Amino acid sequence: MNAKTEYCENVHAIEGGAAVEIIDQTLLPNSLTYVTLRTLDECYDAIARLQVRGAPAIGIFAGYAFAALAHRAPDDSFAAFKTYMSHVHDRLVSARPTAVNLAWALDRMMGIVDAQSKENAIAICCALDEEAQMIQREDVAMCHSISEYGLSLLKDGMGIITHCNAGPLATSRYGTGLGPLLLGTERGMHFKVFSDETRPLLQGARLTTYELEKAGVDVTLICDNMASLVMDRMSIGACLVGCDRVAANGDVANKIGTSGLAIIAAHYHVPLYVMCPSSTIDMTCASGADIPIELRNGDEIKTMFYNAPTAPDAVPCYNPSFDITDHSLVSAIVTERGICRPPYSESLRGLAEKK
Amino acid sequence: MNAKTEYCENVHAIEGGAAVEIIDQTLLPNSLTYVTLRTLDECYDAIARLQVRGAPAIGIFAGYAFAALAHRAPDDSFAAFKTYMSHVHDRLVSARPTAVNLAWALDRMMGIVDAQSKENAIAICCALDEEAQMIQREDVAMCHSISEYGLSLLKDGMGIITHCNAGPLATSRYGTGLGPLLLGTERGMHFKVFSDETRPLLQGARLTTYELEKAGVDVTLICDNMASLVMDRMSIGACLVGCDRVAANGDVANKIGTSGLAIIAAHYHVPLYVMCPSSTIDMTCASGADIPIELRNGDEIKTMFYNAPTAPDAVPCYNPSFDITDHSLVSAIVTERGICRPPYSESLRGLAEKK
Repeated sequence: MNAKTEYCENVHAIEGGAAVEIIDQTLLPNSLTYVTLRTLDECYDAIARLQVRGAPAIGIFAGYAFAALAHRAPDDSFAAFKTYMSHVHDRLVSARPTAVNLAWALDRMMGIVDAQSKENAIAICCALDEEAQMIQREDVAMCHSISEYGLSLLKDGMGIITHCNAGPLATSRYGTGLGPLLLGTERGMHFKVFSDETRPLLQGARLTTYELEKAGVDVTLICDNMASLVMDRMSIGACLVGCDRVAANGDVANKIGTSGLAIIAAHYHVPLYVMCPSSTIDMTCASGADIPIELRNGDEIKTMFYNAPTAPDAVPCYNPSFDITDHSLVSAIVTERGICRPPYSESLRGLAEKK
Repeated sequence: MNAKTEYCENVHAIEGGAAVEIIDQTLLPNSLTYVTLRTLDECYDAIARLQVRGAPAIGIFAGYAFAALAHRAPDDSFAAFKTYMSHVHDRLVSARPTAVNLAWALDRMMGIVDAQSKENAIAICCALDEEAQMIQREDVAMCHSISEYGLSLLKDGMGIITHCNAGPLATSRYGTGLGPLLLGTERGMHFKVFSDETRPLLQGARLTTYELEKAGVDVTLICDNMASLVMDRMSIGACLVGCDRVAANGDVANKIGTSGLAIIAAHYHVPLYVMCPSSTIDMTCASGADIPIELRNGDEIKTMFYNAPTAPDAVPCYNPSFDITDHSLVSAIVTERGICRPPYSESLRGLAEKK
């Protein structure tokens, strides 16, 4: 199974723990390229530039990056080491503000440093290496467990809409949002999945369709603005998304477009399931209003950065050029002969008869 | 005023009526290129390939194209001429199935041919040229009237979301959906407009921001999936859209994504105003279920056809990477420790305490 074999080392330590190797996700689906990161700037950029993305994967990466940078830290005094690692912590935390897992993993790694009472560079590095591996191992187990719980909410043959990418690439194995689909497919179940392309960076097109197609899941690519028509005309049983942070009241911060999808799903009585490790739940945030929203460079919208095909060849697209807006949602229809208000069956007939 | 001067001849007859000149809208905003169309294949392709698009503009174009093809029709007998023009009618109608204006304009032109009792090629061509001009003149007057009615629904300083392009390029002058914004701006009013980019063909980015920026309207480009966050956090007073066909019950067929925008607008109590000529209202369609939805080639989604910047340099973008989904819209939060259901303030606390 691809989901198990190919992606379980999506992020891993190399060079005896002094470097981290990742799949450069900005190059998928057209090139499966591994990159090696050794310096603080490289590690920061890998997060900021989304070479590694997905809240759990960022947490795993931050653990390995922190450990690798400890291998390369100044070793003239324990105080200098701690000061440097504290700087590493703060710099990496700042790479992306919304996901809680990044700070969570780095706090956990810094806790290992803080717990050391004496200077023993080798022992500290070993402890950090082990902690990073443990974060990853825990994530593998978590994703499997999330996938089992999620699968209990789905039925064989169900139509599903996904947004962004919460698959193996975004986590360790299985993923969160895609986990039930991969696990169910392993067990012989069939789903009809529509993947939002997820503008502006196209994680749904580039990563979700790539992962699902490789795993043998029936997936069709749509633009984000097609989800309403798909829910109206196809038989959709659930929307599955991952998330970056959950507030104590259940408000969910996730990829831009999730709230719109959720509103549309509620309109069509389609359940929206949010799949995440419990570390994503931030009980210190009372509500979504307390979660900072990352604003990114507008060029990501204006410049079509991805000149190659945005999804694998084998993935079909559904490309309706129009949709139907139900009259109950229209406040007024404005024509050259006046403004029609509901009930339209009367006001439009009146307009036609005025001719 | 640009809206008046630059676009009023967006589509026009040249070569004594034997050809049609249009702005190639597929090349905007980076190149303002006029193309001349003389053959039936060229006219068909101009519609099918969206060189001319927007329901009223397609109607105007179809009128001029029909007249131009009459100039070039076989003139060996009146019967042969009528047969050929009937073929022209049917072929052009088939170029795009959803917009009612295309069939409406072509039926009107064919009616002129059918009304001729004797063969007088010059008289027929003159009558067709005049009818095409009249369709355009009527559209100019209609757009002005629609814009006046639409403006009566808006207030100075209002935040507005638009979808696709229903501006001068899609019509004649002023446009339908953008008409109130252009007219209000001429009168010194200020609007804060967010333009959906409108995937997959980016008419909002390429055409709406181009038209509004040229007319001095404050416009910001967003991805389609950002409208929910914009309605939640900015002060949005209305959504303005054009439309391609209205059914007798008020159901509206418009660019893919309109129904999703409408559902989201209803959720945030933002009115959605549909702006269209009354010819767009098709009383023979009982409801939206009777309106055919055009399915286009999937490569439009998968291939980023537009390598140049998708909007003018001067247009800013708003690029939030995340949004907040209100807990009331979340059916379940699935973690490795179990499934939380509403009320989340209790279920999430319970999960945290299980640690």
